[in-house]
Amino acid sequence: MPGPRLEIEYCTQCRWLLRAAWTAQELLTTFTTTLGEVALVPGTGGVFEIRLDGEPIWSRKAQGFPELPELKRLVRDRIAPDLDLGHSDRRH
Amino acid sequence: MPGPRLEIEYCTQCRWLLRAAWTAQELLTTFTTTLGEVALVPGTGGVFEIRLDGEPIWSRKAQGFPELPELKRLVRDRIAPDLDLGHSDRRH
Repeated sequence: MPGPRLEIEYCTQCRWLLRAAWTAQELLTTFTTTLGEVALVPGTGGVFEIRLDGEPIWSRKAQGFPELPELKRLVRDRIAPDLDLGHSDRRH
Repeated sequence: MPGPRLEIEYCTQCRWLLRAAWTAQELLTTFTTTLGEVALVPGTGGVFEIRLDGEPIWSRKAQGFPELPELKRLVRDRIAPDLDLGHSDRRH
């Protein structure tokens, strides 16, 4: 069974493709085949939203841009609860 | 109606994430919201395959790695036939 689908919807008008692609690469580097796929979804109007199997887990409008360690913890807690994220797990 | 879905399945063992993400960014830069999404799909066993709405349009095993101008022409011919690709359209 394929792993979960993570979507990153980003605003093309704001030129956030590079940030979205960077975020995707970070998540795919950490979770590799535990994720089924990471989809980059071009949008408009200032959107930068991340959904995991349809469930919104981050919204720029509500929370600003995600820091990677926090985003990785959110994803890890849902798809690989036993995975140690190393530095990303250390309380700063 | 959302635009077409393009998938890039890449081999994680071969560390082809960066090449897949680069290809995704090039296609999303050229086609922006004409594409509905570009999905990065982690795989194994030397896979580097590109599918457009499920139709295979590139296979590394059959064709080697895609050059971007050629790949952009393949995608353009299917989703935006009237789009001028500038340099990518010039016969070299």
